[in-house]
Amino acid sequence: MAHVYIEDIGQHEGEEVTIKGWLHNRRSSGKIHFLILRDGTGFIQGVMSKADVGDDLFKAADHLSQETSVIVTGTARADKRAPSGYEIDVKTLEVVGESHDYPITPKEHGVDYLLDRRHLWIRSERQQAILRVRHEIINAVRDFFNARGFILADTPIFTPAACEGTTTLFPAQYFEEQTAYLTQSGQLYNEANAMALGKVYCFGPTFRAEKSKTRRHLTEFWMVEPEMAYADLNDVMDLAEDLVVSVVARVLEKRRRELTVLERDIAKLESVQKPFPRISYDEAVKTLQARGLPIEWGGDFGGPDETMLSEQYDRPVMVHRYPAAVKAFYMKPDPDRSDVALGVDVLAPEGYGEIIGGGERLADLALLLERIKAHKLPQEAFEWYLDLRRYGTVPHGGFGMGIERVVSWICKLDHLREAIPYPRMLYRLYP
Amino acid sequence: MAHVYIEDIGQHEGEEVTIKGWLHNRRSSGKIHFLILRDGTGFIQGVMSKADVGDDLFKAADHLSQETSVIVTGTARADKRAPSGYEIDVKTLEVVGESHDYPITPKEHGVDYLLDRRHLWIRSERQQAILRVRHEIINAVRDFFNARGFILADTPIFTPAACEGTTTLFPAQYFEEQTAYLTQSGQLYNEANAMALGKVYCFGPTFRAEKSKTRRHLTEFWMVEPEMAYADLNDVMDLAEDLVVSVVARVLEKRRRELTVLERDIAKLESVQKPFPRISYDEAVKTLQARGLPIEWGGDFGGPDETMLSEQYDRPVMVHRYPAAVKAFYMKPDPDRSDVALGVDVLAPEGYGEIIGGGERLADLALLLERIKAHKLPQEAFEWYLDLRRYGTVPHGGFGMGIERVVSWICKLDHLREAIPYPRMLYRLYP
Repeated sequence: MAHVYIEDIGQHEGEEVTIKGWLHNRRSSGKIHFLILRDGTGFIQGVMSKADVGDDLFKAADHLSQETSVIVTGTARADKRAPSGYEIDVKTLEVVGESHDYPITPKEHGVDYLLDRRHLWIRSERQQAILRVRHEIINAVRDFFNARGFILADTPIFTPAACEGTTTLFPAQYFEEQTAYLTQSGQLYNEANAMALGKVYCFGPTFRAEKSKTRRHLTEFWMVEPEMAYADLNDVMDLAEDLVVSVVARVLEKRRRELTVLERDIAKLESVQKPFPRISYDEAVKTLQARGLPIEWGGDFGGPDETMLSEQYDRPVMVHRYPAAVKAFYMKPDPDRSDVALGVDVLAPEGYGEIIGGGERLADLALLLERIKAHKLPQEAFEWYLDLRRYGTVPHGGFGMGIERVVSWICKLDHLREAIPYPRMLYRLYP
Repeated sequence: MAHVYIEDIGQHEGEEVTIKGWLHNRRSSGKIHFLILRDGTGFIQGVMSKADVGDDLFKAADHLSQETSVIVTGTARADKRAPSGYEIDVKTLEVVGESHDYPITPKEHGVDYLLDRRHLWIRSERQQAILRVRHEIINAVRDFFNARGFILADTPIFTPAACEGTTTLFPAQYFEEQTAYLTQSGQLYNEANAMALGKVYCFGPTFRAEKSKTRRHLTEFWMVEPEMAYADLNDVMDLAEDLVVSVVARVLEKRRRELTVLERDIAKLESVQKPFPRISYDEAVKTLQARGLPIEWGGDFGGPDETMLSEQYDRPVMVHRYPAAVKAFYMKPDPDRSDVALGVDVLAPEGYGEIIGGGERLADLALLLERIKAHKLPQEAFEWYLDLRRYGTVPHGGFGMGIERVVSWICKLDHLREAIPYPRMLYRLYP
């Protein structure tokens, strides 16, 4: 009997197949057990009739509890009413591992209860759907950059100094005498890599010791960061736009089933098409003020500002040219107007806020030295980075896209904690 | 004038193109400058004749130094003698950024000198070739698992407890009161993910605070770890074999040019075909003893043992069924013989040693509890892991493959430090 994965069952209609999985749910109706089976690739109903399997097995199946691991053999049959399109007429069932008092039942549980049992919670249909969408998003991102000739160049996790400020860094003891800081962004290294390899990206875990407990923050999250030599702000915006369109299209193409499980409004995702509106920070501030928000020119946007801005459009909006004072030292000032920097944030629709931040970098050595001083950063820690301006500097730029924020938006989650298998937050380090 | 990447120059033969890059090298011969240009995608020779460009530009080009960033326009011309197959007849050249006294010259430099300048060293032809092969290996690995229906499920970097022993853990301060340890392996989480999603892999940075300074160790390295529900040791060995064959074939297919730059003996890689020899630890010990090595049954293999074993074969060798006492607590003992565990190591040929370690996991709750006690591990830290055996346990297994070791072997490097953009070692945290 061939072992078949549930997602492949359609290729075996009418055949006798073996499913190796777990009992997800069970109900009985007189002489028939309806067994919802899962094997990680999908869910399918097994129909076990007393007449087919005999009294002993039928009776034994009466006591099977949720998450018992079972090997089931039976005939695959098309059924239009079934979510997967198929059912199995069960012939034999073997219990592999028992399961008593499985702690996550169909009733409602509090989120802390579920997070304490995240290793089991991920077995639920909804959490599996989210993790599959996450998988698809990550692969879509990688395929996008690979197809465009970007080289993956991993940037280090252990760094000797901070990239942006020091208050949100996690220190790690590096053998007896040293302290290493966990990376907040691979960007500075990315810039070096772009000078070597032209177009690069890094994609790895990133760490921010933020004490905020909002639904938009994790202490450990994954970020993809492309960087291009010989590129300006417009190139960066074009790339960000193409990336987001490509990722959403891929999820729509490959993960319809999961979006249905998540009850996602598909039309909202289908409207994510080029061109994205591109508005300046100045315009954004005027819009917010006109709607009564208390923002003044010069301040960074808060969550409510981003939410209101993103709700103006049916697709992501790109806000560019932020006040230089609120942006990082390495951002290039606008040559036409030095009080704004050539940075861009991409805000997701439906109130999801920033998913991408980036821009053109400051390529001029003298100006960069000035900015390092103005930001009171230790120049010696950036000597290697300054070398990139000493030896053949070129205009360049890139951005970072937070994966959990994209997952959260595309799946329409309430909180980032469901967008990653094992979320890490201020009070959450287990399991 | 279209901006063209050097790797695409063949599509523009006879056309006037613009290359945006850096001057890698220059020599002059009377009325001709030969300019070796690089743009991250490749290297190409630009031929600038005084007759074509006039006295002024020709004279200016006489002073261009290594790593000056330049935009060059000229006609692409096929030339069989050229490594890339093409040259450019230069018409114009614009200096974008100067470069004086570039610190890495064609002369020999010591490795510490180069590692201190790793951000510049990666611009060299050899280092670029290695990083491109690394890129290809990582993408080959991901494509392999994705094509087989494995779901990428990221495991956490911050962990509350050690997976294998505690002496080689890096502690990080997690806000005021807690300590988090940086992951040594995603395996335990992988097992939970496999129970949810069937076939999974994680792929991320991994940390070991090893004080050894051998050529086989980094403190921060990347590892891919697949895990399969309903799988035994043979399934694990089959998967490892297919993966390695697939990765080597992909590099041979896509990165010939880079292997040539590295002067790699292609024939050695071409012999990496199925089936790989599979020998038991018992047989391996006998082989080593017959060759005069001082190993006794029961000991783990050292570097010299692995080197000698791997040199017996023209392809990777799989050594299985190690003494249970030297292996991790979660390995399943052989049901036929409890003194050996159902683990497997894959040793790369040409003396490169272990690239993969894995096996079948212990699925039985009572036996696992015994092993945790025997290893003097704190049971409470593993309660969530024990849940996997309490609720529908199934036979399962997987492995971890160290990316830098594979890069090192395929590129035939002397030391892992060249196999990653920014190596981290006992005394190396910069740049």
